Amino acid sequence: MNGQELTKSLAHAVISSRPEDSADAMREAEKGLLDFTAAAYAGRKDSGVKKLLHLLEGEGGKPIVPLIGQGKKASPLQAALLNGFVAHALDFDDVHSDVRGHPSAVILPALLSSAASRGEDERFFGAYILGVDVMARLGESIGSRHYEKGWHNTGTLGAIAAACAAGYAENLSIDELERAIGFAASQSAGMRVQFGTEMKPLHAGHAARSGLFAVKLAQSGFGGSDAALDGELGFFSLYGDLEKAQQALVNHWGAPWRIVDPGLWFKIYPFCSAAHHAADAIRHLIAEHAISAEKTERVEVVFPPGGDAALTESRPATGEEGRFSVEYVISLALNGQELMADRFSREPIPSGIRAFMERIHRVYDAGIRPDPKAVPKGRFTIVRAFLADGRVCEARIDCPKGAPGNRLSGQELIQKLKLALHPDEQKAEHLLSAIREKDIHRFLLQI
Amino acid sequence: MNGQELTKSLAHAVISSRPEDSADAMREAEKGLLDFTAAAYAGRKDSGVKKLLHLLEGEGGKPIVPLIGQGKKASPLQAALLNGFVAHALDFDDVHSDVRGHPSAVILPALLSSAASRGEDERFFGAYILGVDVMARLGESIGSRHYEKGWHNTGTLGAIAAACAAGYAENLSIDELERAIGFAASQSAGMRVQFGTEMKPLHAGHAARSGLFAVKLAQSGFGGSDAALDGELGFFSLYGDLEKAQQALVNHWGAPWRIVDPGLWFKIYPFCSAAHHAADAIRHLIAEHAISAEKTERVEVVFPPGGDAALTESRPATGEEGRFSVEYVISLALNGQELMADRFSREPIPSGIRAFMERIHRVYDAGIRPDPKAVPKGRFTIVRAFLADGRVCEARIDCPKGAPGNRLSGQELIQKLKLALHPDEQKAEHLLSAIREKDIHRFLLQI
Repeated sequence: MNGQELTKSLAHAVISSRPEDSADAMREAEKGLLDFTAAAYAGRKDSGVKKLLHLLEGEGGKPIVPLIGQGKKASPLQAALLNGFVAHALDFDDVHSDVRGHPSAVILPALLSSAASRGEDERFFGAYILGVDVMARLGESIGSRHYEKGWHNTGTLGAIAAACAAGYAENLSIDELERAIGFAASQSAGMRVQFGTEMKPLHAGHAARSGLFAVKLAQSGFGGSDAALDGELGFFSLYGDLEKAQQALVNHWGAPWRIVDPGLWFKIYPFCSAAHHAADAIRHLIAEHAISAEKTERVEVVFPPGGDAALTESRPATGEEGRFSVEYVISLALNGQELMADRFSREPIPSGIRAFMERIHRVYDAGIRPDPKAVPKGRFTIVRAFLADGRVCEARIDCPKGAPGNRLSGQELIQKLKLALHPDEQKAEHLLSAIREKDIHRFLLQI
Repeated sequence: MNGQELTKSLAHAVISSRPEDSADAMREAEKGLLDFTAAAYAGRKDSGVKKLLHLLEGEGGKPIVPLIGQGKKASPLQAALLNGFVAHALDFDDVHSDVRGHPSAVILPALLSSAASRGEDERFFGAYILGVDVMARLGESIGSRHYEKGWHNTGTLGAIAAACAAGYAENLSIDELERAIGFAASQSAGMRVQFGTEMKPLHAGHAARSGLFAVKLAQSGFGGSDAALDGELGFFSLYGDLEKAQQALVNHWGAPWRIVDPGLWFKIYPFCSAAHHAADAIRHLIAEHAISAEKTERVEVVFPPGGDAALTESRPATGEEGRFSVEYVISLALNGQELMADRFSREPIPSGIRAFMERIHRVYDAGIRPDPKAVPKGRFTIVRAFLADGRVCEARIDCPKGAPGNRLSGQELIQKLKLALHPDEQKAEHLLSAIREKDIHRFLLQI
């Protein structure tokens, strides 16, 4: 493939796919919707939601699409924005290692708006599988420098992926999808400097809205480039790596679907996935060796170089900033706190927890070989506690609980949903049954 | 200034400014609003407007802000999007050489939405002056590589500039404005591959909406980075050149205001400003030497290297693509056509005009010195016609009509407005009088 044909190849691959034929992919998509619902319900009372709702109510709009957990509806574009925010508000939603970001919080809000506006959901799950696939392939194609430079992949890759997903759901022609990809590319944005603030989850909502808007523009016959990913001035040259994209964007399409392999990572903690290894490790040390803050003089957290790039906060002031702080997570755990959503709110961090963070130090070791099955690839974290009695104990995690390779069971996922909806067991059951029967319209009536 | 303080410095400079005290700047702002109105009215029947209107009507929204020339209103964010599109639809709106893009089509729609929602317009013109200033300074700070790589400055710089303008109009605190700048930065996008399509003018609308949304988010207390322009992961590192920004972003603030010097360029032709030099030159040759397509065997168009970067279409198929084609402009003129809006529509280019374009060739000459007063700096175009009778005649333009240094008179600007509103002389008079009296609410009642 040459650099002039990326957009056409991608649009063609999406449109000619039948991901519904893969039972594996459909099963993973069902799990993905379940986990998304749990994450969004867990975030439904986030203070950012209220601010956004107020702002959108000032704009007005036709109440067509339900806002998850709000008992309200909004216009399709507004709902995509808000549902994307809610799903990612706590950083409790799935991640995907190829994306280096959050696919479902972008793809599913766009698809829910599309399904609710059309009263049609036949291609919903297929579209979701494709959206995750495209976002994973964009992540691989854009190259690791993209994230390292400061882009937030959820935002920058999400709009194109959501446009491909909604484009499939709405049965666009190849011409329309080529243009939709370009409209999405021209709205692709999001900076990592927003990590630890409310703007980070809004990037997911923004990408969902941009992708859906791109599809609507294409359907209206709006004119745009049909080759926006291609060539020297195109998306990959501008945001990433054109050569890599030429190799990776559509090769081995659907074999396997990326929602199956490497698969989505469903989180057991409501914070950045890059701190999950350390969280598992410190909980293991507490369980095995009964260590605590009192007994611990110093903690070293060992990463491969760059393995902590997402953990931008070493001295967070609030729980929200603490979502991106391995120091905060470890300090919480050693101080006997549960790693639950209420510890990661906009409240200031108590002084005792803060003080202990001073004893935690990051170390980088390029000499340690990550497990070949590590998730994400090449990543590990070692937590090493130096105790007051002179003992040193350590635990190493290469594949944390919830990640592909160490997956949550179906029962654990259901538990995540029930906990998020607690105490409304009945709603949890209704949602679960709609998801299992793949009945999106019943699902929309419940959320 | 170090790289950690760009956002704060910019927010502080904006908030502590009193641009209303400069009579020169206020006069230029009045001209800017006049020219913007003319450009938007000229574009009001563009086919893209209908598509966007239909799409936005599907969303619904409170009818608060007038849509220019449509006899309709929309919600503030929707109106910012649509009015930005309309103003830039024909590429007939002002450009600014520091921006390398279109400031007023972004700044003014954001400010009109803000003024209409609040019923308050005291700071409107000051905010406009500041918006142009910030966009010019961002353009200078981001460096020329930004545009050359493929970014569309109108889109990528416009959101932050519109946020600063609307932030001043709405009297944000410095904290709020710092965050608003970050919210805008996180939505900054737009690719040059869209040149010659309807998506290009939508970049202006998108930036206007993003800037206004950024201000609304900040007012709602939404959380975000207060230093999004700064440091290694910030806006300038990501999109451009941090070092340059540290030198240029706020130095010599207000001395002079950039709307005064170098000033806005008001267009006399509805196409890309990079082809205006050639248009003036060919019209000169036709007037002086009575040349025509029939008499001309070949035409050379000489640019400094890179001087035609914006002219992406050498063989356009439609008039719209022809907005970015020096070949089309020259072929039209030599075939006796007026360079008016109806020649730059989505209609296919007639075969005679297309055939003649084959005789037009671009040449680059790094040895020719541009006039020190050339606009844009370093730019010139020579049109050299080789006639069938053996004669060669040429004309050179360094500063085309309408550009700063060769400005339109007040009377010529009024003529542009009247032509755009033709045959509605009365509305033209009403708008003109509201603009002269700086009465934005009367202006909004008329548009």
